[in-house]
Amino acid sequence: MARKTGSHSEITGPKIRAAAQRLFAQDGFAAVSMRRIAAEVGVQAGALYLYTPDKQALLFDMMTAHLGELLEAAAALPAAPDPVARLDRFARFHIAHHLERPEAVFIAYMELRNLTPENFAAVEEMRRRYEQMLQAILSDGKAQGLFRIGDAKLTTLALIAMMNGVTTWYREGGRLSRSEVAAHYADMALRAVRA
Amino acid sequence: MARKTGSHSEITGPKIRAAAQRLFAQDGFAAVSMRRIAAEVGVQAGALYLYTPDKQALLFDMMTAHLGELLEAAAALPAAPDPVARLDRFARFHIAHHLERPEAVFIAYMELRNLTPENFAAVEEMRRRYEQMLQAILSDGKAQGLFRIGDAKLTTLALIAMMNGVTTWYREGGRLSRSEVAAHYADMALRAVRA
Repeated sequence: MARKTGSHSEITGPKIRAAAQRLFAQDGFAAVSMRRIAAEVGVQAGALYLYTPDKQALLFDMMTAHLGELLEAAAALPAAPDPVARLDRFARFHIAHHLERPEAVFIAYMELRNLTPENFAAVEEMRRRYEQMLQAILSDGKAQGLFRIGDAKLTTLALIAMMNGVTTWYREGGRLSRSEVAAHYADMALRAVRA
Repeated sequence: MARKTGSHSEITGPKIRAAAQRLFAQDGFAAVSMRRIAAEVGVQAGALYLYTPDKQALLFDMMTAHLGELLEAAAALPAAPDPVARLDRFARFHIAHHLERPEAVFIAYMELRNLTPENFAAVEEMRRRYEQMLQAILSDGKAQGLFRIGDAKLTTLALIAMMNGVTTWYREGGRLSRSEVAAHYADMALRAVRA
């Protein structure tokens, strides 16, 4: 086939990642072969290796891309006047961002055990940086007497787990809109920590 | 081998379930073969089929045993005078119960997609019954003006997700004891819903 390498790689790289994400979310990383990903994309298995050294690299790229996007978007949140407004904004952002990419969120949690130790450490470091953004809001609020928090780290992890749960039950077109759901979670998060 | 069937099955059934649970939690249901479970137990693969028709049945038994135990323990919680005390008791119970069996909790969430549709429906029905126990406490508290809750179902799922998260980070011998952690989560759950 006389396709130009440039356009070929531009089209096929994202297609491979999208196909792999769909299959990993559906059947799990362990159950999906490179051959099956190739079939889903519509290329020969050998062609896959032009784009990725192996399935592990594909998973690692997928997770770091997801967390990189999350960190970047959270860092770009508009400033808010005080920790109460910052927590409200952060919670609404978190819910909206996660509801928009349920497959990536699912894989980011479900497939941690399938990362090599080095890749796991790198992913955990990115996740820790995200948690620290929330923890900083909580600590500021505590310092200003606005929040009452027993343990900032535990509270951070509890709030993130609470908010992440939304992707497991939310269905588009159900009785609550995304923004109603986001407002509800933000309200619970604030009330759980307010002094 | 001249072993009596009675004692044989009494010993090997629980051993098979324990081995399967360990392996499923470590490598995932999809990656673990019946042959490997047999090797872990120290029996021939064929012997496994005396105890379970297949790997799906093993997974389903594991999940329903876990949820059955959870439902039974929650139903046996001592009565509490009002919804505030009931929620506090429920939250502390939930944390303690889950921290005692991290592998079963992990599998109960991670391997849902590997259940057949019929088995999935049965597991979801048990989970729904558990959620309804918490939702009843929230609704009673709302009816008595003790709780302010936008949506009882969403609030139930948010609190359960928040509490379930504890198994992903808690490590025995860390800076917080189990009962400190349970008290902290119960406090957050109460504050998130109190009027």
